[in-house]
Amino acid sequence: MNALVTTAEFLSRSAKEVEQALAEAIPAEWVFPVQLREAMMYSVEAGGKRLRPILVLAAAEAVKGDSDAWHSAMPVACAIEMIHTYSLIHDDLPAMDDDDFRRGKPTNHKVYGEAVAILAGDGLLTHAFYSVSQAAKRGVSAETVIAIVSDLARLAGVPGMVGGQAADILGEQGRTTLAELEYIHSRKTSDLIVFSVTAGARIGGASPAQIEALTEFAHKLGLAFQVQDDILDLIGDEQKLGKPTQSDVQQQKVTYPYLIGLEESKTLVERLTKEATEALTRAGLGKPEWLFAISEYLMSRDH
Amino acid sequence: MNALVTTAEFLSRSAKEVEQALAEAIPAEWVFPVQLREAMMYSVEAGGKRLRPILVLAAAEAVKGDSDAWHSAMPVACAIEMIHTYSLIHDDLPAMDDDDFRRGKPTNHKVYGEAVAILAGDGLLTHAFYSVSQAAKRGVSAETVIAIVSDLARLAGVPGMVGGQAADILGEQGRTTLAELEYIHSRKTSDLIVFSVTAGARIGGASPAQIEALTEFAHKLGLAFQVQDDILDLIGDEQKLGKPTQSDVQQQKVTYPYLIGLEESKTLVERLTKEATEALTRAGLGKPEWLFAISEYLMSRDH
Repeated sequence: MNALVTTAEFLSRSAKEVEQALAEAIPAEWVFPVQLREAMMYSVEAGGKRLRPILVLAAAEAVKGDSDAWHSAMPVACAIEMIHTYSLIHDDLPAMDDDDFRRGKPTNHKVYGEAVAILAGDGLLTHAFYSVSQAAKRGVSAETVIAIVSDLARLAGVPGMVGGQAADILGEQGRTTLAELEYIHSRKTSDLIVFSVTAGARIGGASPAQIEALTEFAHKLGLAFQVQDDILDLIGDEQKLGKPTQSDVQQQKVTYPYLIGLEESKTLVERLTKEATEALTRAGLGKPEWLFAISEYLMSRDH
Repeated sequence: MNALVTTAEFLSRSAKEVEQALAEAIPAEWVFPVQLREAMMYSVEAGGKRLRPILVLAAAEAVKGDSDAWHSAMPVACAIEMIHTYSLIHDDLPAMDDDDFRRGKPTNHKVYGEAVAILAGDGLLTHAFYSVSQAAKRGVSAETVIAIVSDLARLAGVPGMVGGQAADILGEQGRTTLAELEYIHSRKTSDLIVFSVTAGARIGGASPAQIEALTEFAHKLGLAFQVQDDILDLIGDEQKLGKPTQSDVQQQKVTYPYLIGLEESKTLVERLTKEATEALTRAGLGKPEWLFAISEYLMSRDH
């Protein structure tokens, strides 16, 4: 991408490229039963920032120093968006968070029923690994593809996102400690961000030291993102967010503002973002500009 | 395995080896939240024939002609049992088949609640791909591991098992045709059998022609297995099966005996098994004895 475009333009253009690739990655011939593919596409096309896939692409470009890394990285970018989407479908289910709306639209099970929503989630989760395997056809070495499969299964699985969701669901209302909350956020949110950045970096040809620095960058960026989410749920604009605010308060969810206060939470977002960008600097990448720009954008976002 | 042991002994010993490997493949340090690992292990340890993992191991040995192929094939054997187990947990959910008992024990969600059951399924599905990635550490080439990841995602995903379950759930009671029923059984049951046999064969070093013959073998074996399941639900022994019989009739499920009659269904099992073993002969394997023995055993099983 040309460095003269703004961050907002970069994110918008990148999101469109990801959305096109996603539509191609989910075969049109999956027509039996037709409701299953429809349910998958309903949630995949429901929008969102496409932050995770964009981080895969931006990290690959940042390490390689060339935007031709995007072509190799796109199957993995699609994979992480499929994982993110499946997690939203399952999290919204009546047995889990029981949400009726997501991004201003009825949730998957409200439209297609619970059975199809569960299966649409299972289908997206499974297909994510198919998508990763396709990177081998775009010049990514077989060893790197296997490392990415292993990372994805770990960071999206029980030691990562699935474990975080279980800890969140099983936690007692109002009794979560700050350490537990950081654990839940790290697993539920940071781990997919860590996957996105490090998988892109692997495809770009990162050294082990670069992977280590980028893991810290992504972990702190993910936590900052989640704390900002907590803040926006409290004081954000419902129109911009596309969902009702104050839902955490109503559901008696323990959040950063609840535990440490609003001002302290804002300071935490700033501190985490600063530490994230320091780690990013330490990685010594060839073309890190978009990763810096994304970090800054996320800290100041209002939706 | 020594050829002097009986098929029943071979299956029982093999199942024990698989069960030990499965317990090791799901890390003991996954203790937070403790209910999640417990729920996963509850269903993983609930028994069953371990048919799919045993087919992975037997196929690897059959192609390679040496039982040392088991060591390389075990991570993939564990993976397919994790996939099978997750599919049972999700299929039993109230929104799906709404079953209270499985193998004589309360189903996962009856013990751990729906939320944990959904997450235990998601965790097992995700971890299956981690397990496949570990085969690369046991002498399986990186290219073969990627082919297996891709096969598993396809055959367990929307074009395979998940699509079959969706078609089954969405099918109208009493109005399924024979062609639709064969489609559902092929996706729900045969596809995981095809995966098991071909993944093992790939690890054993099979040629493309052998993979093709073994795909036909496994597809027909899987269909025979499913028709036999339909028959046993109608006329089997509840004690031996560990579940109530006549459940298909009560749920007005369309089965082979319903569509073509009991005697015709028995004839079909025999014909499919015969065609399966002919395809197996055509594969020209070095040591196919256990695959032949398993085929014969499945046709005559009473549970």
